[in-house]
Amino acid sequence: MGGDHGPSVVIPAVARAIAVLPGSVRFLLHGDEAAIAAELSKHGGVAGRVEVRHSDRVVGMDEKPAQALRRSKGTSMWNAVEAVREGQAVAAVSAGNTGALMAISKLILRMAVDMERPALVASMPTPRGVTTFLDVGANIDCDAERLVEFAIMGEAFHRAAHGVPRPTVGLLNVGSEEMKGHEEVREANRVLREGKIDLDYKGFVEGDDITRGAVDVIVTDGFTGNVALKSMEGAARFVTAELRGALSGGVFASLGALLARPALLKFRERLSPPPTAPFLGLNGIVLKCHGGATVRDFAVAIRVAVDLARSNFTAEIERNMRRLPDALAEPMAEPAAEVVQGADE
Amino acid sequence: MGGDHGPSVVIPAVARAIAVLPGSVRFLLHGDEAAIAAELSKHGGVAGRVEVRHSDRVVGMDEKPAQALRRSKGTSMWNAVEAVREGQAVAAVSAGNTGALMAISKLILRMAVDMERPALVASMPTPRGVTTFLDVGANIDCDAERLVEFAIMGEAFHRAAHGVPRPTVGLLNVGSEEMKGHEEVREANRVLREGKIDLDYKGFVEGDDITRGAVDVIVTDGFTGNVALKSMEGAARFVTAELRGALSGGVFASLGALLARPALLKFRERLSPPPTAPFLGLNGIVLKCHGGATVRDFAVAIRVAVDLARSNFTAEIERNMRRLPDALAEPMAEPAAEVVQGADE
Repeated sequence: MGGDHGPSVVIPAVARAIAVLPGSVRFLLHGDEAAIAAELSKHGGVAGRVEVRHSDRVVGMDEKPAQALRRSKGTSMWNAVEAVREGQAVAAVSAGNTGALMAISKLILRMAVDMERPALVASMPTPRGVTTFLDVGANIDCDAERLVEFAIMGEAFHRAAHGVPRPTVGLLNVGSEEMKGHEEVREANRVLREGKIDLDYKGFVEGDDITRGAVDVIVTDGFTGNVALKSMEGAARFVTAELRGALSGGVFASLGALLARPALLKFRERLSPPPTAPFLGLNGIVLKCHGGATVRDFAVAIRVAVDLARSNFTAEIERNMRRLPDALAEPMAEPAAEVVQGADE
Repeated sequence: MGGDHGPSVVIPAVARAIAVLPGSVRFLLHGDEAAIAAELSKHGGVAGRVEVRHSDRVVGMDEKPAQALRRSKGTSMWNAVEAVREGQAVAAVSAGNTGALMAISKLILRMAVDMERPALVASMPTPRGVTTFLDVGANIDCDAERLVEFAIMGEAFHRAAHGVPRPTVGLLNVGSEEMKGHEEVREANRVLREGKIDLDYKGFVEGDDITRGAVDVIVTDGFTGNVALKSMEGAARFVTAELRGALSGGVFASLGALLARPALLKFRERLSPPPTAPFLGLNGIVLKCHGGATVRDFAVAIRVAVDLARSNFTAEIERNMRRLPDALAEPMAEPAAEVVQGADE
């Protein structure tokens, strides 16, 4: 029921996903029975693969998380997450209210790791594919342990979602040398460098590496990640608006823009926001699809949910999490070193 | 002598600046006498407004700041900053090694405020002008007091550099509500909100407000600021590269790109990096011009230096800094409030 379009996007997306997914994948659709039935009637072949679970109420898109949580029991969102806890579903996908979905998921499924809230992942386009970037806003204060947990979860997610056997991992900082940055990031770097956690850690990366695709997974705290994500969205919006301005000034430029229109449309599509943000760190798989999701976007989110559910994602995370206490133990003697915290130019 | 081009950019830039500046503005040129003389001979009318101060040595562009500092006495960079301390010059402008210029400036001029290093300012283009954004990498760990100091300095800089009588100021956060963000940013928000510091504070802003121009001055710690700046540069580079790719695929798109070429060139110029980064918090005015600066860029930096030197910039900063201890004092009773740190969607 969530997102800007509700069943009129979700049902066609299910139809689209069904066309490419194996017959064993089935769907529970939570929400208003009549509205769902009306959409299902337009998509033959879908009804046999879905089961409709009626709910009278929905979580509003503009409700505050705390307020939504108090009255969320029995809503379509609550029921979808509850079905994951009960083992009736292996994953929940929603285009609804992000804060409410996060609060409900945390309450029902509980955290598998010791974090404030599930980590939010952004998938950033790069010339060679996608960078998995986390946390983009859920956990504001992060110590070294938290950052290493993000690395473990982000790496397993990237492998499951993108089929990369051994994703490379970087830690976001203001320079590439070991002495750069604040204490939390330098300590997380030490832990990841020492190799007791099983992942391909490449060291520090910088802000421009996110869209360069220098590594597959980039880890940072939720404050920095949220600011970086929104800064990049703003910069991309500014650049395209400036471009539009430039291409509408004068006859030649306008004619040029007209001729280049299909190319420019493809370009805009390439820059559209990533359709899926998984919540990592829960006992269960929950994916958030952005509110303005199209049929294609929601179908992508469904496919990612299926990929995650069929992968060893959860077991891989657990295996590395068990290595964490040993990896976090202080080394016998810390080498004395000059600390140069500031950024390179 | 600094930057990628040395006197072949600096001298023509001085010539360009002289053409628009009043006759009272004079220049001390520090560096290799012969190289400077050779350039001066190409620009009639400049010699009468400059005085050449010979130095045998220069700071290399690739030297580490600590290493450069040890052997910097007597270099052109050292002499330029020393002339500010001695009152022979009102401002120093350099396109040389950023870290070395910062270290030398701090050593010679000393900090006027209690900070690790001078704050680095970026000037970001927006649809309505420029956002002054600081700190973009010098001070990594920032408490509330430091953030308020950045607000005071950034506001005075923006007024002096851009002629805006009363610049608006925002604090970078992950959401606009008072409960958002970590303790430092919430405490700085309280101090600025209470109005004991004389500036037009607008509250929290988010990452995309930097290029939107929501306020004139945006304040953050050096870690977040550096990551945001480089993330935006990366995003802008990615978008323009994608665009180039889109416009070279196929005959129509290529023809379109050809017709739109002048518009696209203007567009690229609009996105070129800001030419000038002032170092704020020193007892004296020092401006860094980026290493690849063109004649136009360096001339802009000179004009900004002159604007700063003629403004009440320093006095305005001092006046607000004196208000700081009173503004930082804890209120009598802190109202109990639910803390919701995480980001909005």
